[in-house]
Amino acid sequence: MSEGNRIIASWHANADQWIATIDHGEIESRILVTNEAIVRTITSYPLVSVLDIGCGEGWLTRALHNKGLRASGVDTVAALIGNALEKGGGTYEVASFQDIATGMYTVDKKFDAAVINFALLDQTDTEALVKNIRRVVADNGLLFIQTLHPLVIARQEPYISGWKEGSWNGMKREFVQPYPWYFRTLEDWIRLFTEAGLTLQQLAEPVHPETQAPVSVIFVLQVSA
Amino acid sequence: MSEGNRIIASWHANADQWIATIDHGEIESRILVTNEAIVRTITSYPLVSVLDIGCGEGWLTRALHNKGLRASGVDTVAALIGNALEKGGGTYEVASFQDIATGMYTVDKKFDAAVINFALLDQTDTEALVKNIRRVVADNGLLFIQTLHPLVIARQEPYISGWKEGSWNGMKREFVQPYPWYFRTLEDWIRLFTEAGLTLQQLAEPVHPETQAPVSVIFVLQVSA
Repeated sequence: MSEGNRIIASWHANADQWIATIDHGEIESRILVTNEAIVRTITSYPLVSVLDIGCGEGWLTRALHNKGLRASGVDTVAALIGNALEKGGGTYEVASFQDIATGMYTVDKKFDAAVINFALLDQTDTEALVKNIRRVVADNGLLFIQTLHPLVIARQEPYISGWKEGSWNGMKREFVQPYPWYFRTLEDWIRLFTEAGLTLQQLAEPVHPETQAPVSVIFVLQVSA
Repeated sequence: MSEGNRIIASWHANADQWIATIDHGEIESRILVTNEAIVRTITSYPLVSVLDIGCGEGWLTRALHNKGLRASGVDTVAALIGNALEKGGGTYEVASFQDIATGMYTVDKKFDAAVINFALLDQTDTEALVKNIRRVVADNGLLFIQTLHPLVIARQEPYISGWKEGSWNGMKREFVQPYPWYFRTLEDWIRLFTEAGLTLQQLAEPVHPETQAPVSVIFVLQVSA
């Protein structure tokens, strides 16, 4: 099984645990820092419509819907989309990164922006999605990506892009099937964006209110016309 | 005295010590990592002419001249430019960041690129220079900036832009008049570039061969037409 398939299989297996984890606000960095950071960053731009790619149970799509945006969410895990539909707020469909990258997933009208919040875990699926984001985002539209701040890795081990052993350590519930995830240095993120024809408009580094260390990085990228 | 004037006064006072330090290769990170990194990055682009701003005693200007580029260096410290002229290789003139920013320093023909290697130390002088780089770089030309990697600060103290106490610790000679220098997070570097109308083309993170931690960051920015 490819790493990408292993990642997707894990999310299928953990869908219920994930829904409960989000519903109960059990990931401290999200509650303290990164949820508000991505919402604030997106809503600081004048956008009408946004597609939340890898939306999970839909908390971000709903938050953007509640801010008045036309918000849609897609995820490859049907159990998560089913839960998002039950909760309501925004529109939801089952679609994978590959569905978007290959054009299997189509939109009537391209979005003003897309957001990928802590969902870029695989190497090749990430590259395919980022390089084909024009299939769903309009010319001059924006792509927001929030991911782990690379210096979190630089503190602990050699600063080199590559596969890292994953774990569910720190979760309050019994997750199964930990999976490897692909770490990128900032150098390699920027290389991918340049190859994809995306221009970096803003880079945000939300810091933890107590440690004052950066927790995540948010890239705001413009799709050239 | 403003911080900018304090920084310049220190470099006037330490010119001879700096020349000896560079001549004897006494800064390990430069010899091991960052000198080669900036030369390699610049020469990976098809350039004919380059202006080395804050060139000091001229090692980088000479290195680029020796690679076949039409290389010029400017520095506000006449003693350093005097030494550069003695050593030869490239052309040299006395000019400050403010001279460039305000148009007091003029060029017959704009350069294909400018480089600022570990010379952005002040807050306001840095902003003035970066925002006025078009005065010396042609449309669609490049600006290369190498500076301390922000995570070096993030490891030690709150990750917030601001003035840091400087020191000459680690130097092998008797430097005087240490000065404060202005630290910027990556977020704030990118904000400055966006405000200046510069597009990030590449970001390089040279790593130390032993620790495998990033030592510096190199921004490669395009001046929009």
